[in-house]
Amino acid sequence: MHAYRSHTCDQLTKANVGDTVRLSGWVHRVRDHGGVLFIDLRDHFGITQVLADSDSPVFAEVEKVRSEWCIRIDGVVKARDESLINTKLPTGEIEVYIKDMEVLGAAGELPLIVFGDQEYPEETRLKYRYLDLRREKLQRNMKMRSDVVASIRKRMWDKEFREFQTPIITASSPEGARDFLVPSRLHPGKFYALPQAPQQFKQLIMVSGFDKYFQIAPCFRDEDPRADRSPTDFYQLDMEMSFVTQQDVFDTVSPVLAGVFEEFGGGKKVDNPAEWPQISYRDAALWYGTDKPDLRNPIKMQVVSDHFRGSGFAIFAKLLEQDGTEIRAIPAPKGGSRKFCDRMNKFAQEQGLPGMGYIFWRDQGDGMEAAGPLAKNIGPERTEAIRQQLGLEVGDAAFFLGGKPSSFETVAGKARTVIGDELGLTDTDRFAFAWIVDFPIYEKDEETGKIDFEHNPFSMPQGGMDALDGDPLDVLGFQYDLACNGYELVSGAIRNHRPEIMFKAFEIAGYGENEVRKRFGGMVNAFQYGAPPHGGCAAGIDRIVMLLAEEANIREVIMFPMNQRAEDLMMAAPSEPTNEQLRELNLRVIEQD
Amino acid sequence: MHAYRSHTCDQLTKANVGDTVRLSGWVHRVRDHGGVLFIDLRDHFGITQVLADSDSPVFAEVEKVRSEWCIRIDGVVKARDESLINTKLPTGEIEVYIKDMEVLGAAGELPLIVFGDQEYPEETRLKYRYLDLRREKLQRNMKMRSDVVASIRKRMWDKEFREFQTPIITASSPEGARDFLVPSRLHPGKFYALPQAPQQFKQLIMVSGFDKYFQIAPCFRDEDPRADRSPTDFYQLDMEMSFVTQQDVFDTVSPVLAGVFEEFGGGKKVDNPAEWPQISYRDAALWYGTDKPDLRNPIKMQVVSDHFRGSGFAIFAKLLEQDGTEIRAIPAPKGGSRKFCDRMNKFAQEQGLPGMGYIFWRDQGDGMEAAGPLAKNIGPERTEAIRQQLGLEVGDAAFFLGGKPSSFETVAGKARTVIGDELGLTDTDRFAFAWIVDFPIYEKDEETGKIDFEHNPFSMPQGGMDALDGDPLDVLGFQYDLACNGYELVSGAIRNHRPEIMFKAFEIAGYGENEVRKRFGGMVNAFQYGAPPHGGCAAGIDRIVMLLAEEANIREVIMFPMNQRAEDLMMAAPSEPTNEQLRELNLRVIEQD
Repeated sequence: MHAYRSHTCDQLTKANVGDTVRLSGWVHRVRDHGGVLFIDLRDHFGITQVLADSDSPVFAEVEKVRSEWCIRIDGVVKARDESLINTKLPTGEIEVYIKDMEVLGAAGELPLIVFGDQEYPEETRLKYRYLDLRREKLQRNMKMRSDVVASIRKRMWDKEFREFQTPIITASSPEGARDFLVPSRLHPGKFYALPQAPQQFKQLIMVSGFDKYFQIAPCFRDEDPRADRSPTDFYQLDMEMSFVTQQDVFDTVSPVLAGVFEEFGGGKKVDNPAEWPQISYRDAALWYGTDKPDLRNPIKMQVVSDHFRGSGFAIFAKLLEQDGTEIRAIPAPKGGSRKFCDRMNKFAQEQGLPGMGYIFWRDQGDGMEAAGPLAKNIGPERTEAIRQQLGLEVGDAAFFLGGKPSSFETVAGKARTVIGDELGLTDTDRFAFAWIVDFPIYEKDEETGKIDFEHNPFSMPQGGMDALDGDPLDVLGFQYDLACNGYELVSGAIRNHRPEIMFKAFEIAGYGENEVRKRFGGMVNAFQYGAPPHGGCAAGIDRIVMLLAEEANIREVIMFPMNQRAEDLMMAAPSEPTNEQLRELNLRVIEQD
Repeated sequence: MHAYRSHTCDQLTKANVGDTVRLSGWVHRVRDHGGVLFIDLRDHFGITQVLADSDSPVFAEVEKVRSEWCIRIDGVVKARDESLINTKLPTGEIEVYIKDMEVLGAAGELPLIVFGDQEYPEETRLKYRYLDLRREKLQRNMKMRSDVVASIRKRMWDKEFREFQTPIITASSPEGARDFLVPSRLHPGKFYALPQAPQQFKQLIMVSGFDKYFQIAPCFRDEDPRADRSPTDFYQLDMEMSFVTQQDVFDTVSPVLAGVFEEFGGGKKVDNPAEWPQISYRDAALWYGTDKPDLRNPIKMQVVSDHFRGSGFAIFAKLLEQDGTEIRAIPAPKGGSRKFCDRMNKFAQEQGLPGMGYIFWRDQGDGMEAAGPLAKNIGPERTEAIRQQLGLEVGDAAFFLGGKPSSFETVAGKARTVIGDELGLTDTDRFAFAWIVDFPIYEKDEETGKIDFEHNPFSMPQGGMDALDGDPLDVLGFQYDLACNGYELVSGAIRNHRPEIMFKAFEIAGYGENEVRKRFGGMVNAFQYGAPPHGGCAAGIDRIVMLLAEEANIREVIMFPMNQRAEDLMMAAPSEPTNEQLRELNLRVIEQD
């Protein structure tokens, strides 16, 4: 017989009754039923009930075991009484009478109980991660993460992509976030950097003549702590293709992601990838108040300025006399109660706005009545025109926000979410996707008036060189995001592979040719030797798994995460270097006051 | 039609004759045949001949293109004349008459010609890696590397292993090599380290109750430059299993590797993994002079001390009077010529030994004659006994080395390799594997006499705690390597998962409990909460690909390698940090004199 097991703890059934078997695993729970010791023996695969009574030759030893001891038992499989069958367990029909036992690894007093659902502070969970990981939820999440990544790989291979590893110890790539630096011992005073993303390398792979690249790539950013992200690194499905248009990228990646969500989405509806809408950045802002809209929520905002222009609602009427202002409506089907409308108005105030005007329509016996102060101010005709534009009925409401869109768009988006949630409009049993396209290449810093890149500087402007001759703020890029249920899941672009257009694009943002060569020299040089048109995207692995596992905290989907102060409490990192190490690296730590 | 291509450059055949097609790719070669321009248009997939004569509306533009320009052409497929068919190309039956052309990316003067086999200095190849990578050999190597890694993943999944990513920004893991450090910005004066291997993490994954783990894992070591290794990082297939014996690990990993070598070995014979021999570390040293023997070479050394004890060959006879000395023979079938024997004797001298005695057997007309000075000294009877022990015949030779094995074993191993190569005994059309087992846990430093770990400190001693009570140098570990064609391909062990045995093992090597807790705290703590028996191994990915691609230089199988001075010439890494970066990290670079 094998040294440790003849079966795993999910395998034994009635068919094994009478067999002598060997099992290894952890003591999940011990129950003493008056001289009979029942142990739920757990391994990675399942649980089997094993037991010893005073007839067992090792009863005295079995009496000593405690939770989370790792043991090996030999025993005989017996059928349970009909009344004791546990239909929830694959092994619920049998139990194993212990004839021999070996303690493989004893356990001290546990700082964290594996069995059950007791909650523990995050610091405890991270310090004793190996105990936390034995719990059912993390076992499930980690298995799912591994399976999701494997599924992505298979799907990319099926599309004739090859995975190539790009360097981890490399050059600083100033892409907006802060680099982690690695001091060089052989080159005193010089540093490597960990890549914020394989952006330049994947583009170089295209210039090197490889047609389709992907990588499950670690990305490193020295971020300031925030609850929902890892302070050091994250993983992305990074991909790039040569000789493609934006639509080719969509056609490639959409079915991959749809397939993964179907495979692991627990039966939730996944929108047909052939039908994922493409929404311009500007429309997304208008309709949803965000560039990562949650399309499970059917609410679509509309411009209703005309109904308020010169109306009796003086605040809006006056606002509209200023340049660049608009009134937008958030329709709220089934939201037609004063209580709900007041609550939403209060929500807007909590978010820093003066409030949200509203109208709601109620049944007045002999017909429909539009209620709320706004309706009174603008009169029945305009109110009715609004209702018709928004397609609302009795029982529905609409909220109104006015001013420069930038002043209220974000709150409007949040209000839309709250309304959708509270009114039960949002279909929580669905993964809803949309490609957000036509991102502007540039944005203007509100304070300094300086033009800078809105996203990343590597995207091809729509219209190429010619487009760069006009107003920079009008230039759109072949640049896109994929939104899913309100999260940005993917970001990508068709790249600017023409050095002359690239230099011009950087010049507009205030970067001279020398600066560009210094920052992105590897890539810019390469573009001068026959660069192909290319494009791609990157999808956040952690985020995908969080959505599928229905977890809000990224640390629930990472095997050994840092805490929010970027510390590994289990391994005690970071730690003080030895003097020898510092000397070899030619570094001195500056004393803190 | 698609913006860039209707077909890739490997697809068009006679079936497409008459079709209007669109191709994109690089100008591999241009030939001007008296007013007709022939272009070999190359993409990732293949080459298609396209051409323009003066009838082409874009002849003037086509005349301007140069090697490695990236272009898009539209044209009509025509059949080649029977006499011009190129049977080496899948597209060799056709050519495409260019009707339209677009320059997608022009190229300047090339520092490295992609077409042909011209050799370039490594610095040029690395600086213009994106051009070097377009060449046939590197395209092939990179594709193979990617396919090998994909195949390994599939094979591991099939064996129910899951891949889990372990942290890259983590704690120093003092495993023998030098760590790369990463300064922490949030914790001034403290540093993370990049993992030398995921050793502790994979063991923690086992303690966490995951049954089977693998990872294609990057490993980071700040190594001093050496030609055949990367100075910064390498990849390994890292794997670990719970509740296993050494044989279980072999049974799992052997077919995975055999499968990969069969799949990518270009038809070379791959030893049946069920028959890979297990050779003890001591026997390997004796038989092959190395712990990574090349078993394609049939030569097996033997101890022949008895034949020389008290013999007329005074040097050996005297040597044997000292403790711990031996005489070993290297049989050399077909090596029976004085010329060859003298050459090998010279080889041994070049390697720092006084020389190698030899005997060779030749046909003397009326029988066999043993030639060489050694045979004369020891006389015919002893000579014949040696011949019989070694199983040699007329035309064969044997070489002899004597002394303490440690003084000549390495040279003996090298001599065995040279003999096998020069005599054509080594089967170069084969991948020959052997598990090397029973490594000693400890070794004695010859100078200091201090006992230290021979390999890594995490292996379970054979015999457990009891074994540690005897002579440390007699303790063998459940520790193993896999040798393939003279390289160490895999290294692994059944781990020491019992804290009390671990502390004792470290104590013998001079490390107190506190020191162990400080160095390996994460793992040692975990072992106190029910650790399962576990073991595994790691296989070198770069080495596997080098063997399969028949490359001797690791930089031929890495997409973007460092040079030997640990510099990335293309990306200009490492580089000087900004003052701002140093200030944020609280570091000062010490000025060099």
